[in-house]
Amino acid sequence: EQCCDRPKNTNVRISLPAVCFVWQIAMIILFGIFIRYNEESDAHWIEHKTSNNISSNIENDFYFRYPSFQDVHVMIFVGFGFLMTFLKRYSFGAVGFNFLIAGFGLQWALLMQGWFHSLDPMDGKIKIGVESMINADFCVASCLIAYGAVLGKVSPVQLMVMTLFGVTLYAVEEYIILSLIHARDAGGSMVIHTFGAYYGLSISWMLYRPNLDQSKHRIGSVYHSDVFAMIGTLFLWMFWPSFNSAISDHGDGQHRAAINTYLSLAATVLTSIAISSLSQKTGKLDMVHIQNATLAGGVAVGTAAEFMLMPYGSLIVGFCCGIISTLGYIYITPFMEKYLKIHDTCGIHNLHAMPGVIGGIVGAITAAAASKGVYGTEGLANTFDFMGKWKDMMPTQQGGHQAAGLCVALCFGIGGGIIVGCILRLPIWGDAPDNSCFDDDIYWECMPSASSNNPCLGPHNTVSIASNVWRQHGTIASFEMLWVCPVAYPDRGAP
Amino acid sequence: EQCCDRPKNTNVRISLPAVCFVWQIAMIILFGIFIRYNEESDAHWIEHKTSNNISSNIENDFYFRYPSFQDVHVMIFVGFGFLMTFLKRYSFGAVGFNFLIAGFGLQWALLMQGWFHSLDPMDGKIKIGVESMINADFCVASCLIAYGAVLGKVSPVQLMVMTLFGVTLYAVEEYIILSLIHARDAGGSMVIHTFGAYYGLSISWMLYRPNLDQSKHRIGSVYHSDVFAMIGTLFLWMFWPSFNSAISDHGDGQHRAAINTYLSLAATVLTSIAISSLSQKTGKLDMVHIQNATLAGGVAVGTAAEFMLMPYGSLIVGFCCGIISTLGYIYITPFMEKYLKIHDTCGIHNLHAMPGVIGGIVGAITAAAASKGVYGTEGLANTFDFMGKWKDMMPTQQGGHQAAGLCVALCFGIGGGIIVGCILRLPIWGDAPDNSCFDDDIYWECMPSASSNNPCLGPHNTVSIASNVWRQHGTIASFEMLWVCPVAYPDRGAP
Amino acid sequence: EQCCDRPKNTNVRISLPAVCFVWQIAMIILFGIFIRYNEESDAHWIEHKTSNNISSNIENDFYFRYPSFQDVHVMIFVGFGFLMTFLKRYSFGAVGFNFLIAGFGLQWALLMQGWFHSLDPMDGKIKIGVESMINADFCVASCLIAYGAVLGKVSPVQLMVMTLFGVTLYAVEEYIILSLIHARDAGGSMVIHTFGAYYGLSISWMLYRPNLDQSKHRIGSVYHSDVFAMIGTLFLWMFWPSFNSAISDHGDGQHRAAINTYLSLAATVLTSIAISSLSQKTGKLDMVHIQNATLAGGVAVGTAAEFMLMPYGSLIVGFCCGIISTLGYIYITPFMEKYLKIHDTCGIHNLHAMPGVIGGIVGAITAAAASKGVYGTEGLANTFDFMGKWKDMMPTQQGGHQAAGLCVALCFGIGGGIIVGCILRLPIWGDAPDNSCFDDDIYWECMPSASSNNPCLGPHNTVSIASNVWRQHGTIASFEMLWVCPVAYPDRGAP
Repeated sequence: EQCCDRPKNTNVRISLPAVCFVWQIAMIILFGIFIRYNEESDAHWIEHKTSNNISSNIENDFYFRYPSFQDVHVMIFVGFGFLMTFLKRYSFGAVGFNFLIAGFGLQWALLMQGWFHSLDPMDGKIKIGVESMINADFCVASCLIAYGAVLGKVSPVQLMVMTLFGVTLYAVEEYIILSLIHARDAGGSMVIHTFGAYYGLSISWMLYRPNLDQSKHRIGSVYHSDVFAMIGTLFLWMFWPSFNSAISDHGDGQHRAAINTYLSLAATVLTSIAISSLSQKTGKLDMVHIQNATLAGGVAVGTAAEFMLMPYGSLIVGFCCGIISTLGYIYITPFMEKYLKIHDTCGIHNLHAMPGVIGGIVGAITAAAASKGVYGTEGLANTFDFMGKWKDMMPTQQGGHQAAGLCVALCFGIGGGIIVGCILRLPIWGDAPDNSCFDDDIYWECMPSASSNNPCLGPHNTVSIASNVWRQHGTIASFEMLWVCPVAYPDRGAP
Repeated sequence: EQCCDRPKNTNVRISLPAVCFVWQIAMIILFGIFIRYNEESDAHWIEHKTSNNISSNIENDFYFRYPSFQDVHVMIFVGFGFLMTFLKRYSFGAVGFNFLIAGFGLQWALLMQGWFHSLDPMDGKIKIGVESMINADFCVASCLIAYGAVLGKVSPVQLMVMTLFGVTLYAVEEYIILSLIHARDAGGSMVIHTFGAYYGLSISWMLYRPNLDQSKHRIGSVYHSDVFAMIGTLFLWMFWPSFNSAISDHGDGQHRAAINTYLSLAATVLTSIAISSLSQKTGKLDMVHIQNATLAGGVAVGTAAEFMLMPYGSLIVGFCCGIISTLGYIYITPFMEKYLKIHDTCGIHNLHAMPGVIGGIVGAITAAAASKGVYGTEGLANTFDFMGKWKDMMPTQQGGHQAAGLCVALCFGIGGGIIVGCILRLPIWGDAPDNSCFDDDIYWECMPSASSNNPCLGPHNTVSIASNVWRQHGTIASFEMLWVCPVAYPDRGAP
Repeated sequence: EQCCDRPKNTNVRISLPAVCFVWQIAMIILFGIFIRYNEESDAHWIEHKTSNNISSNIENDFYFRYPSFQDVHVMIFVGFGFLMTFLKRYSFGAVGFNFLIAGFGLQWALLMQGWFHSLDPMDGKIKIGVESMINADFCVASCLIAYGAVLGKVSPVQLMVMTLFGVTLYAVEEYIILSLIHARDAGGSMVIHTFGAYYGLSISWMLYRPNLDQSKHRIGSVYHSDVFAMIGTLFLWMFWPSFNSAISDHGDGQHRAAINTYLSLAATVLTSIAISSLSQKTGKLDMVHIQNATLAGGVAVGTAAEFMLMPYGSLIVGFCCGIISTLGYIYITPFMEKYLKIHDTCGIHNLHAMPGVIGGIVGAITAAAASKGVYGTEGLANTFDFMGKWKDMMPTQQGGHQAAGLCVALCFGIGGGIIVGCILRLPIWGDAPDNSCFDDDIYWECMPSASSNNPCLGPHNTVSIASNVWRQHGTIASFEMLWVCPVAYPDRGAP
């Protein structure tokens, strides 16, 4: 690994714009060739309505799914973005690169998922509507989960590469799991969380930095960065019912998925807090657990949310996951770093990987236990989509298919992550040296952080600190005022 | 009060996990026995639809109420949570304990409200759906309002006890007011705000700390904590129309409630700002008023929001409440603390208690003044639910019932608060000593705040300050870098 | 400009409350005379439903538009408000005055737009419903855009005057563009963004301060103020699809507008980031560009969002606008300040003016290119509203009308801005002197910022800094603790 000892070049001035432009232009060309509006978003809807005897515009899928879509959208951009702002000096990278990944990923996801799921055989075009947008956001979620494992340790160019492959792998495994295997996965416990988390962890394993302790003083939060992270936590937590119900069946499917998720998450809050308090000598709570483990119930109820899991079943799932996830933060994350050489910045193993696998198992069990008594004859066929070539499927069989789906998600996550991790080890991507990880100064226009200087150097130092907070909006700065006093922080006093 | 002079033990390592586990397990058992999906969220919906001749899935109540539910959910978790982050050193407690209260409260509320309102006589089960979730969130709101009065002065265990009793009392008074008395209260001016505020104020009165001035230096904000609080304010303000319309009648009821609330809140903004400016020698505005008083119009229009209050009526309500609420912050809160021995951290008396009572009165007057000319014959019966055993009710009578409802809410709030306050005085709950109130360091893993040390002690001190901002995410810290300079803040320069 | 050299009086204790009270009372009177519920929000809805053979309450416009309304509402209050918090010492003013402008503006907008658009000829009343609320929010958006140009340089009284005239002008130009000229403008590229931006820029030009460099040290951000601004950015970005689809046609119109906006914004993210990286020697990104330029695609797709722009067309619009907007921040904003004497605090020329004009042009081209083949016969008439007196209109003609609409928006923006700017130059409005711009201390109760003192004065200075973070909530402070140490920041260590 001698290449890693070379002074690293973190200049991405050529590579980042190049990747953005080339890929965006490719998107435009591919969208031009392949993507069109579906019948509900096309101007022919008015004729389609008449010919299909649809009585009202309110029957347009837009009105069934758009509120859920908006909630999912908030989870992707504000939820994931702000959840990762907890680091004291990587908030720009957290929210900014999250934005970049999602902005690119959703376009590529529309294409990849379109080819597999909504290619119109008549004209060879992909027809998109509100459900496509939700699915694209879902796909992006798996890449953002993976980002959590490598947060602060990779360059934006690496993230773009990771997203390109992540979306591609996602579309394939989703097709295999949902269409070929006919597993159900409304909230994506398997398809999104298990896949995304193992994809990210495998990449993090491949990119392991033995000397990361040189940046260890930046792996921590400050008071206000923890409050920012709570914005992410809460928007994820609140809108998770919409996430799990966004693409489930119209009517009772969406309704039930929302209720189950709501309950599971509520139970998780209590057990996360209980374990967090138990883990400290004086019973104090740790914000890391509150920010993350409280969400585990939403992950774990994802697959079974649309099934007749029953309200108490949801509570039990949430109860267990709050415990497991919090214990994961306390014991498993340090273990994985020390012994398995997997550094997991945000602890996605505890928030997505373990709960995702649990969710897959819960889904398999719930499906296998389904009966006509509980669901009704029509309800059973409707909920599990026992129609067409699957019309003779039995619930027990469905349980097996669910389990098979979980295995596929695991394989794609781990296998894909190892391959992509190898690609990302090439020394051409502009990632930061070991002593500059978790530092926004590498990729963002903000002066060097004071903690990397001796803060006692007098005037010069004051300027370097002050100029840190000095970034301008299109004008030329005069530093005079800041030179006055070398000791106190003139500017930092203000805010 | 000699017990209060003892050094207090704030260790909640046994009590907090015990309460969380015991209550969560109780919830699972009770949910297992009692709670099932209602016909709109059960898999039998497809059969129910056929047998009830429902033409489309869009008729499922989910599509009428879910967007409003999500807005209410945001108000509960982000709105109330962030509104209370204004204290310089209690943001974790504000948003974290808010999360805990709400997570537990909503489960208990589903049970309590279910027993009173939606017990199916056929099988003795409570049937839940989207409206139950909204009602549970509403119930939790009253407990969060009460939290505002005692913010920073109680332990999380006390909050759990307060929530347990608060939800119980709420369910009973709600049943009396809405079902027995047949008062209408769409936005909960009486049921939620009046009850919740007086419940909290009575508890705060019972828990009065004569020596609280030992913590006075922490009762204040810093620049950025005020900006965080504005997140709470704005999400409450913006989504209040959804709050007041969430459970009102389908169609014109929800529509009108949203419009009335929208208008009332707009008027409140202007008068709050006017009085705030008037109250200072140089006309400067006070963030406390902007954060809180601007919301009073939403509280006060709660009961009458679904009535034909008329747009100008809504503006008048908002106009008055902005004035009264702001004056309350200026004159009444200090008066109550000094003479009535009621310390009200967030000023809930001004934001919830007074506007809630006004809302009850406005509701009574509006109801009494209702006429068939304004509402139409069907509209009148529909709006006031003059059906079944109430079909011969007159608007003037309804006005009386509204007033009776307000009295019930007041009695439950004050009476319940005094009783629960007595319970919370027991010296077993782990609350903070008088000199450590409003301080996250008591219940959260973050190093002691610098303000409680002499900050001139040299290296040791720097470390204590620095370590304060140092919390780790699963790794071991090296403090070396921070030892360099004892004078300036190495780390605070960075963020 | 001798008047500008006089010491300015920033006391608004008379003028601000006076304006708020007088205008709010005027609103109540005018609402009393003019504004009533429309048939969908009136209690007669139940009779209206029967007589119009409406089968279900779900057909009430509330259910078509309320989720979009709430998203727009969030954009107005949180989106615009937080986007402007980036300044290190003007976050209160950003979010607080934004709140004031919007709270007043929406009331006045309901009246002005009502007179032009929804006056019931039967009784001379304005009938309001959910669509009126969306339109009022849209109108307010144009004033908030204008606020971006003068952020930090005007008093709240000036902002109220600016809003009064801004809303009035908006209502007139909207009537001319949409009703007289029959241009279509679903997302308001012309009506909202072009008008609002040029209105603000013209006012900023009229209020040019040659000595503004005295406040230059405050035109910049600190680390956390940039994170706050990202909250604004993301909520604007995420909910822009709702903005552009909020008032478009039920069914495919809303559906298509949301898709087009979603895609355009995604493309903008990539090109903004690419140009931002290219513009710095080492490829670092600038938060200003990420916060602002990433939104340009939403502006530029506004007019054409409901047309058959096609998915790739949306991507192309977003692609171009990301580039143009970012280049604007790099080159045009400094140029305008230096040579045109237009200081544009938030860079609205890059985010709203240029993309707005592009949006108008794209709309004209897309309309002119419309054909029955692409839209279907009914779809074409439906999309462009070729009905009634416009039933013989051709797409090419419509293109011309769109272009005419753009010119009207430009004229109203520039002309109106110059006139209102003249009014705002009167020395009676309490605006800040040149050396106190961008400073919350002028209009908000927070102690003077440390940067305006010599921070080396010893104890006194510590107190002034500390008291800065000391604002109280209704109690009297004891400063003792803060006197201990003159060098380090006792309090700033805490948060």
